[in-house]
Amino acid sequence: SLKRLLEKVLKGDIVYVFKYLSPQERIKAFKVLLSVDLEKASDVLYDLDEDVQIEILRNLPSEDTVKVLLTFSPGEIAKIIDKLPKSVQQQLLSKLEEEKRAELEKYISYGEETIAHLINEDFIAIEDNKTVKDALELIKEFKDKDIEIIYIYAIDEKGRLTGVVSLKELLTVSENTQIKDIMTRNVISVYVNSPLDELIEIFKSYDIYVVPVIDEEDKLIGVIYIDEIIDALSEKTTEEFFKMAGAHEEELFYENKILKIAKLRAPWLIVTTVGELFTAFIISLFKITIYKALPIVFFLPLVAAVSGNISSQSAIITARGLITGKIGENLKDIFIYIVREIKISIVLGLFLSFIVGFISFLWLTNHAVGIIVAVALFINILFASFLGGLIPVILKYMKKDPSFATGPIVLTINDILGIFIYLSIASYFIAKLV
Amino acid sequence: SLKRLLEKVLKGDIVYVFKYLSPQERIKAFKVLLSVDLEKASDVLYDLDEDVQIEILRNLPSEDTVKVLLTFSPGEIAKIIDKLPKSVQQQLLSKLEEEKRAELEKYISYGEETIAHLINEDFIAIEDNKTVKDALELIKEFKDKDIEIIYIYAIDEKGRLTGVVSLKELLTVSENTQIKDIMTRNVISVYVNSPLDELIEIFKSYDIYVVPVIDEEDKLIGVIYIDEIIDALSEKTTEEFFKMAGAHEEELFYENKILKIAKLRAPWLIVTTVGELFTAFIISLFKITIYKALPIVFFLPLVAAVSGNISSQSAIITARGLITGKIGENLKDIFIYIVREIKISIVLGLFLSFIVGFISFLWLTNHAVGIIVAVALFINILFASFLGGLIPVILKYMKKDPSFATGPIVLTINDILGIFIYLSIASYFIAKLV
Ligand SMILES: [Mg+2]
Ligand SMILES: [Mg+2]
Ligand SMILES: [Mg+2]
Ligand SMILES: [Mg+2]
Ligand SMILES: [Mg+2]
Ligand SMILES: [Mg+2]
Ligand SMILES: [Mg+2]
Ligand SMILES: [Mg+2]
Ligand SMILES: [Mg+2]
Ligand SMILES: [Mg+2]
Ligand SMILES: [Mg+2]
Ligand SMILES: [Mg+2]
Ligand SMILES: [Mg+2]
Repeated sequence: SLKRLLEKVLKGDIVYVFKYLSPQERIKAFKVLLSVDLEKASDVLYDLDEDVQIEILRNLPSEDTVKVLLTFSPGEIAKIIDKLPKSVQQQLLSKLEEEKRAELEKYISYGEETIAHLINEDFIAIEDNKTVKDALELIKEFKDKDIEIIYIYAIDEKGRLTGVVSLKELLTVSENTQIKDIMTRNVISVYVNSPLDELIEIFKSYDIYVVPVIDEEDKLIGVIYIDEIIDALSEKTTEEFFKMAGAHEEELFYENKILKIAKLRAPWLIVTTVGELFTAFIISLFKITIYKALPIVFFLPLVAAVSGNISSQSAIITARGLITGKIGENLKDIFIYIVREIKISIVLGLFLSFIVGFISFLWLTNHAVGIIVAVALFINILFASFLGGLIPVILKYMKKDPSFATGPIVLTINDILGIFIYLSIASYFIAKLV
Repeated sequence: SLKRLLEKVLKGDIVYVFKYLSPQERIKAFKVLLSVDLEKASDVLYDLDEDVQIEILRNLPSEDTVKVLLTFSPGEIAKIIDKLPKSVQQQLLSKLEEEKRAELEKYISYGEETIAHLINEDFIAIEDNKTVKDALELIKEFKDKDIEIIYIYAIDEKGRLTGVVSLKELLTVSENTQIKDIMTRNVISVYVNSPLDELIEIFKSYDIYVVPVIDEEDKLIGVIYIDEIIDALSEKTTEEFFKMAGAHEEELFYENKILKIAKLRAPWLIVTTVGELFTAFIISLFKITIYKALPIVFFLPLVAAVSGNISSQSAIITARGLITGKIGENLKDIFIYIVREIKISIVLGLFLSFIVGFISFLWLTNHAVGIIVAVALFINILFASFLGGLIPVILKYMKKDPSFATGPIVLTINDILGIFIYLSIASYFIAKLV
C-alpha cells in the first residue's frame, strides 16, 4: 500500500519536497522510495541538483547506488561517475553491457561541460516523404511513455535530420499532406559534443522547447528538452558563486573529508598569503615614515577594504557585462566603459575621502595626517576602479573567464599596489609637511 | 526587399546576433528592424535581457519607444516602465486604452518580483464536457499564431480551471472521448500575483513546459511558457552578482548618469568606510605595542585579506547551500555544518600560519614577532571561518537573503573584530616576551 501511495504521488511533488528535507532525512526518504519503486526513485534522483544527487548516491549501500545508476543513460552516468567512490565506479562498470560501456567512455571523453548528459533518446522521427497521417500513427505509440511530444523530426533514408514539424502544425493541415511540404527545413540543432554554453544560448535565443542532437554524420541521435536547461542553469550559478570565492563546487561532494576540502580551498588562500607577504614587505620599506607619523598605519585596513570594495564593484559589473554581452567587445567601447568607471570612482572617491579626512582631521592631534590620508585614499580609489575595470577585460582577451577577476587575485594585486601607492603619497607629504 | 529579407530571418537568429553587437551597433540595427517590421522588432526586443531592452528603449526617439511598448502586454510594460525617462512614461500612459492602463497599474502594484510580466494571454481553454474532437477543432484556430500548443486547459462553465490535457494525450485516444475523462485534474498552477521564485521552483521540480495562471476566483487568465524562465533565471543571476558587490543592477540602465550610479554604489562603501574607521580607532589603541614591535603592523593587510578570504569562502558556500537546500534548516544540521567549516579552517590555518610564521621568522630581526604573528593569524582564521559560516544562517533565520553575507558588511565586521583579536593577542605576547 505504501507502494501504491508513492505511485500516486507526482514525481515533481517528491522533488519539490526533497529540497526542504535535511540531508539525513533526504537519504532516509530516498531509501524508502527506492525500496518500493525503483523507476520513480530513478526519475526523482535524475531531477535533483547534482550536489544532492551525489550526496544521496554516496550514502546508499553500493549495490543500491549501482542499481539506480544502471537506470540512467550513459550520458547521465558520465556526468557524475567521477564523484563516486572508486569501488562503486568499478562495480558499476563491471555490470554495464559492452555497448553501454563504450558509450559511457565516449561521453566521459567529451567532458562534463558538453551536452552529452542531457540527451534523451526517446523522440519521434519520420521519413519526410511520409504523410501527416503516418506521423499521427507514430504518436500513438508514445501513449504510455512519460515524455511530452512537442515536435516530430523529419529524416531522410539515411537517418539524417532534414526538418521539424510541431504537433500544432500537424493538427492544422489535412491528413494527406506530406511531411516535407509542411516541415521547417532550417532546423536548429546541436552536435553531440557541443559545449553546454552553446545549448544554453540556443534556448535563450530561440523560443523552442526541444533541440535535436545530431552526430558527425548529421544523423539524429536524440533530443534535449528545455527543462534540463533550467537545472543546468541553476548548477552553473552555484559553480560561478564558488569560483568567486576561490572555492570549488566539488567540495560539496566530500561530506566530511576535511583534508580534501581544505586542499580545494587552499590555492587562492596561498596566493593571497604570498601576495600579502609582499604587502608586508612594502610596508616595512616605509618604516621611517611610519615612525614619523604612526597614525598613517591606522588606516591601512581602511585603504585596503575601501579600495577592495571599489575594485570589486568595478570588476563584478564589468565581468558580468562582458559575459552577458551588455559591454561590447571592441576596444573603443571598452575604453569608454572604463573611463565611465573612473568617473564614477571620482565622485565616490571625493565623497569617501572627505568623510575619512574630516573625521581624521578632528580625531588626530596631527591634523596634517588627516589631510594626507584623505588625498592618498582618493588616488587609491581611482586606481582601484581602473584595475577592477581593466582586469576582466584582459582576462576576456586572454580567453579566460572574466569572473576570475572578482576573486582573491585581484583583491591581492589591489592590496599590494594600493598600499604601495598609499604609503608613497603619504611619505611624500610627510617628508614635506611633518 | 530589406523588409522581405528581414521577414525571412528567424527572430531567434536576430536575438542571437544581438548579443555580439556593441551597444551602438545594437541600437542602429534595432532602428532598421523597427522601420521595416514592427512586429518582429517587438518580438526581438521582448526576448532580449532586461538591461539590453532598456538600453535600446532609452536610445530610441520617444515616439518609437512608445510605439514598440504599445505592442507589449501590460505585464511586460509594468516590468520596465520605471526604468524609462519620465517623459516617455507619460506619453505611453496617455496612449494606452483605459482598460489596459488599469491592468498596467494593477501589475505595477504587484511589484517586479511577481510573475505578472511573464503571462501570455494566448492559450486554448475548453469546457471539460466537450470532446477531443472539439479540442482538435480549437487548435486549428491557432494555425497562424506564433506560439506552440503543448497543453489545452479544461474549464468549467464559470471559466475556472479544472484540468489539463497534453496534445499527445489528445492524439492517443478516440475523438469522441470527453475531455473530463482524460484530463489530469491535479493541475499545477500559479496565482497571478505569485512570486517569481515560486514559479521557478515549480518549473524546476515538475517536468512541465507551460504553467497556467489563475486569478483569485480560480479563473484561468493566462499561461507562462518555460522559455520565459530561462530569461528570468539569467537576469536573476546577474542581479545576485551585483548584490554580492554591494552594487545594484539598476545602474546598467543609467548609461552615463555618473551621479546616479555613484549613488547606487555608495551605501556599501559608506558602511565599509565607517566600519574601517572603527578599525583605525582600534589600531590606535595599540600604539604602545606597535612602538615596541613595529613589524606587527606590516601584517595588518595580510591578516585582513587572509581572514577575509577565509570568511568569504565559508560565507559563500554556506549561503549557497542554504539557498539550494543542500544545507538543511534545522539547528543540529547547521551546527554540524559550522563545526565542519571550523575543522577545515584549522587545517588551512595551521598551514597558512606556518608559511607566514616561517617567512617572518627568517625575515624579521626580532624572531619572536614572527611567532607571535603566526599564532595571532591562526586564531584569526578560526574566528573568520566561524563568522563566515554563521552570518548567512542568521540572515536566513531573519528571513533575509543569505547571500548578503558574502558582501562588504561581513568583510567589514571581520576586519573590525579580526584586527582587534590579532592586536590583542600580539600585544599580550609582546608584553610578555619582547
Ligand atoms: Mg527514467
Ligand atoms: Mg539534472
Ligand atoms: Mg533540480
Ligand atoms: Mg564529472
Ligand atoms: Mg526566449
Ligand atoms: Mg517566448
Ligand atoms: Mg557541476
Ligand atoms: Mg509579440
Ligand atoms: Mg525577457
Ligand atoms: Mg521595474
Ligand atoms: Mg526537471
Ligand atoms: Mg525531464
Ligand atoms: Mg531585474
